Amino acid sequence: MTLLVAMTGWHVEDWRERFQGLLPELPVAVLGEPFDRRAVHYVASWKHPEGSLAGLPNLAAIFSLGAGVDHLFADKRLPDVPIARVVDPDLTTRMSEYVVLHCLMLLRQQRRYDRQQLAKSWDDDRNQPAARSVRVGIMGLGELGLDAARKLQVMGFDVAGWSRSPKSVEGLPSFAGAEGMAAFLARTDILVSLLPLTPETRGVLNAELFAGLARDGRLGGPFLINAGRGGLQVEADIVAALEAGTLKGATLDVFESEPLPAESPLWSHPAVTVTPHNAAMSEPEAIATLIATQIRRLQAGEPLEHIVDPAKGY
Amino acid sequence: MTLLVAMTGWHVEDWRERFQGLLPELPVAVLGEPFDRRAVHYVASWKHPEGSLAGLPNLAAIFSLGAGVDHLFADKRLPDVPIARVVDPDLTTRMSEYVVLHCLMLLRQQRRYDRQQLAKSWDDDRNQPAARSVRVGIMGLGELGLDAARKLQVMGFDVAGWSRSPKSVEGLPSFAGAEGMAAFLARTDILVSLLPLTPETRGVLNAELFAGLARDGRLGGPFLINAGRGGLQVEADIVAALEAGTLKGATLDVFESEPLPAESPLWSHPAVTVTPHNAAMSEPEAIATLIATQIRRLQAGEPLEHIVDPAKGY
Repeated sequence: MTLLVAMTGWHVEDWRERFQGLLPELPVAVLGEPFDRRAVHYVASWKHPEGSLAGLPNLAAIFSLGAGVDHLFADKRLPDVPIARVVDPDLTTRMSEYVVLHCLMLLRQQRRYDRQQLAKSWDDDRNQPAARSVRVGIMGLGELGLDAARKLQVMGFDVAGWSRSPKSVEGLPSFAGAEGMAAFLARTDILVSLLPLTPETRGVLNAELFAGLARDGRLGGPFLINAGRGGLQVEADIVAALEAGTLKGATLDVFESEPLPAESPLWSHPAVTVTPHNAAMSEPEAIATLIATQIRRLQAGEPLEHIVDPAKGY
Repeated sequence: MTLLVAMTGWHVEDWRERFQGLLPELPVAVLGEPFDRRAVHYVASWKHPEGSLAGLPNLAAIFSLGAGVDHLFADKRLPDVPIARVVDPDLTTRMSEYVVLHCLMLLRQQRRYDRQQLAKSWDDDRNQPAARSVRVGIMGLGELGLDAARKLQVMGFDVAGWSRSPKSVEGLPSFAGAEGMAAFLARTDILVSLLPLTPETRGVLNAELFAGLARDGRLGGPFLINAGRGGLQVEADIVAALEAGTLKGATLDVFESEPLPAESPLWSHPAVTVTPHNAAMSEPEAIATLIATQIRRLQAGEPLEHIVDPAKGY
């Protein structure tokens, strides 16, 4: 019975050591070295190479090393076994930090004051919108979206949510499905995308959606914050919307191609803030501990937690 | 019975109109124009000229147009009548926005990512401290300090407070007086100053205090956020502490001299964020409404609210 660690882009040796420390009785193999394919019962994956998990006859479960699982479903030859994602309370806290930070930067016009500082120029404008007059719309009402919504409400923002299927959350006005989208967008000054990436959501942050956002808000135009997945956004449409004034600004943590290519106009657009896909990092130690706990559950005959629905893709 | 509006630096005509609109039955005079000194029962002041309120024989109350009243006590010939300050819930919300925004900018290393964006360089560092491992210390546990503390706790920070006299606040570790200062500073990674300016607090943010801050924190050195009053800080000591590494950075909304002089090194120090004394602006309409309500209370024989203790200076 072996745990196979299959990743690209991360330091696999660090992960092998972590898992071995947490699960001393379980052999840990890493993709790229020889191992007995029949012995593999568990896989921990971050962007494993296409097809590399095929031909594991005793595989019982795949663990995503992140909250997102779109990297798994990108593999057309993914084995048909239960898939669990990481639900790390720290990750939720961090995502909400990012969302609250960037909503406050927009509310409090931090970039304007950055420019004043650079110019050594003082302008104590007394007309600042109150948070309660700024409408934040959160797309995606999973654990991340709900935590961000609650914290934005604590800060005073006027928050609503949109989700694929209707959700009833006390104190949070929410909209659902294609039929709820127009009304949701029309009351949104800052759109926060925390959607999972699925075939249905790919490219949803596009020109048509931007055109539906509120134009009468106290911030002087709508803003986009995408901290979900890069595949949700059409970057050419973002740039065009900024030029046309359909968007007043954008804060992006994720991109169609990562790392963001040097030639992307997003790097240097004055109304854009980019961050290197770090809105919600889990500490590697925390992720490994959560997966080790899941493996112990399986070995004790208990059911897996946080299983992904392949039909929905999240 | 007249309300006298006495201010420098603000548009007095706007204030005259606001008060006249809210109190149509009460004559409103403005300093600088002729008026009957014996008719003045109330003064609304923002930095009135020294001595200009002397010789008002029927004065019943002075209203500060801001939360701070140090501008009043700066006048050695201030009449000995009750002084009320503005307690505006919107102002409290705004101050907490500022404090949470700038604590999050420090936690999430926003300035580092600003530099990466400028350099078009991508570094998705996976070692980010959790908010619960960053200790924020709030000096001043009035309405502003307590609201900021609560919201920082919601965001996950490890928060404690310090006040002149002991305060017991559920769930908030707090320190008091000179004897509590060393222990408070020693557990503080981000020091947030929300103190009133009094003879006792003038210059309290100095080299000796900075030397007492935590040096073992997850942010790699202590930070100062002063959103209270400029007179609390010794700017030469801040600059020296930044050079020596005693402070890792500073976020300042207030200054010894305002507007911040062009020659100040704070404008261009890479570890300093300056804002133009706008952490917590009240909307003029809200301030005027609160003062009009107080005047109506007096006229109905009810006691003033939010009276300042001249012995404490706040």
